[in-house]
Amino acid sequence: MSEMVNVAVDAMGGDNAPVETVKGAVNAIAADQRVKVFLVGREPVIKEELKKYTYDTAHLEIIHAEEVIETGEPPVMAIRQKRESSIVKCMYMVKDGQCDALVSAGSTGAILVGGQVIVGRIKGIERPPLAPIVPNINGVSLLLDCGANVDAKPSQLLQFARMGSIYMESVIGVRNPRVGLVNIGVEEEKGNALTKETYPLLQNCREINFIGNVEARDIPMGAADVLVCEAFAGNIVLKMLEGVSDALIRKIKAGMMSSLKSKLGALLVKPALKQTLKSFSTEEYGGAPLLGLNGLVVKTHGSSKAIEIQNSILQCIAFKEQNINQKIQEQIVP
Amino acid sequence: MSEMVNVAVDAMGGDNAPVETVKGAVNAIAADQRVKVFLVGREPVIKEELKKYTYDTAHLEIIHAEEVIETGEPPVMAIRQKRESSIVKCMYMVKDGQCDALVSAGSTGAILVGGQVIVGRIKGIERPPLAPIVPNINGVSLLLDCGANVDAKPSQLLQFARMGSIYMESVIGVRNPRVGLVNIGVEEEKGNALTKETYPLLQNCREINFIGNVEARDIPMGAADVLVCEAFAGNIVLKMLEGVSDALIRKIKAGMMSSLKSKLGALLVKPALKQTLKSFSTEEYGGAPLLGLNGLVVKTHGSSKAIEIQNSILQCIAFKEQNINQKIQEQIVP
Repeated sequence: MSEMVNVAVDAMGGDNAPVETVKGAVNAIAADQRVKVFLVGREPVIKEELKKYTYDTAHLEIIHAEEVIETGEPPVMAIRQKRESSIVKCMYMVKDGQCDALVSAGSTGAILVGGQVIVGRIKGIERPPLAPIVPNINGVSLLLDCGANVDAKPSQLLQFARMGSIYMESVIGVRNPRVGLVNIGVEEEKGNALTKETYPLLQNCREINFIGNVEARDIPMGAADVLVCEAFAGNIVLKMLEGVSDALIRKIKAGMMSSLKSKLGALLVKPALKQTLKSFSTEEYGGAPLLGLNGLVVKTHGSSKAIEIQNSILQCIAFKEQNINQKIQEQIVP
Repeated sequence: MSEMVNVAVDAMGGDNAPVETVKGAVNAIAADQRVKVFLVGREPVIKEELKKYTYDTAHLEIIHAEEVIETGEPPVMAIRQKRESSIVKCMYMVKDGQCDALVSAGSTGAILVGGQVIVGRIKGIERPPLAPIVPNINGVSLLLDCGANVDAKPSQLLQFARMGSIYMESVIGVRNPRVGLVNIGVEEEKGNALTKETYPLLQNCREINFIGNVEARDIPMGAADVLVCEAFAGNIVLKMLEGVSDALIRKIKAGMMSSLKSKLGALLVKPALKQTLKSFSTEEYGGAPLLGLNGLVVKTHGSSKAIEIQNSILQCIAFKEQNINQKIQEQIVP
């Protein structure tokens, strides 16, 4: 048997913890024998939750953590003061090498800060981008950075492009992924100071498959596999993707309920539509890795259900087996 | 009879010119007696097109312009060299006071440059924002800036907020419009250097109804009436709105065609859906004004059909009758 992939799961993080986090963990170890999960959080609560399931105890362990970091807390302070919180304990398990990865649906701020301060950056990596998988009309793209580093520098965007290419190729399996710079026009001279300076850096980088600027309009059409931007722009792309989908679906549902005829039609199209809309939901694709750290930190939606927790845990297997961090170190670090 | 509103229409601008531009002009003067249109472009072509219609000649005049600025041309050069182009002629008609406003579906770059260089800014206005009306689930919002000024300064964003409030109140009729700063979190301390500096300026401005930061996710839900941002972010918001809608509608149509049952359902829901989707299309709301100039410059989609041209022309009436520029001058200019 090959070495197991050890994943610390923040059992207390997110709106649906511990019910969905525990369920996701149990499902993950049932789905793949290569993974061992450490459920980190209040032991009595987790134990109670686990009573619902039968599972292989060799693949699941509870690590007690007394405290919980709430979503509203100032992240830097929370990470410093709540040493006994589930997030901080997960971070140390990765830092100390006990775990290869951690998965949390908890406070984004605390995860970003903890990832940098406790787990730490790979030497030579300037900033670790948060890199969610986003759906497009033909498949998926990797969007980075999406919330970790506002006002980033061109050299950082170049690193994002290279780390994103490695991740997309090795973990998602897209060969020679097309890298696009998110911009407000396709011509080279378009954009703001940041994109104008970044463009030639990407163009001159021989290790990536740079295809030029990508307009936001073409992102949902699948214009690139790796979408490079600083975090302010990336956050807007991600949140608009979620917000427009939600608004439009709500409008469509209301439209379908507007007459007897359309109500009848709605009954008939519902099953097909459900499948379609599922493939366009950002929640179907597991969590967003924070790339470039000494270990894998995966942030999932605060509203994560068991399926997203499970997918996020399983995603850690490819990350480890494909030696992503070693590749980042060898290929990118100067 | 009160004074007419004179509007120069770039008959040659856009993908569907002159067919749709001429049609839009004819429909506009039929719809409202207060407007007179000057169709600017190649006279023989326009005359030929006009043969299709009967119209009140007192409300429509042709102004010959030999040249056309193409979409791909470098804007500064095009504005300088093509003095006989339809866009440049329209600009001078506004500058010279012959027209109150101009409407063009032509090159965005040329319109932005021409607006500033030929029509000119109101004294004291730092930068003129491009301000499209965007649909949300409950109505519409004004998004500015949306393409004119990347890397804008906080003082400029404050002017955008004030001009946007005047426009939204006087032209669109929203009382005491809620102003939101587009940001990556709702808390005051969130964002990049620009939004952090802009926040207190908006908060301390007593002439606007500032409601704080607005996340992109809440824009399609109608979180604010006036959405303030610099042009890079604004362009992403607008283009994601268009792109996600298009992608999702395409997905939904494909999903509906996937089985016999769903095909039948699609026939029944189609009329209701069409109406719903129309209200969520950015093309339904006329053009985007470039605010803060000595006259009104309206940019419509390159793909504009007659209805968008018509709506854009009619929108100039309220702009003039409500004395928007006088209000901007009196209320904003220091």
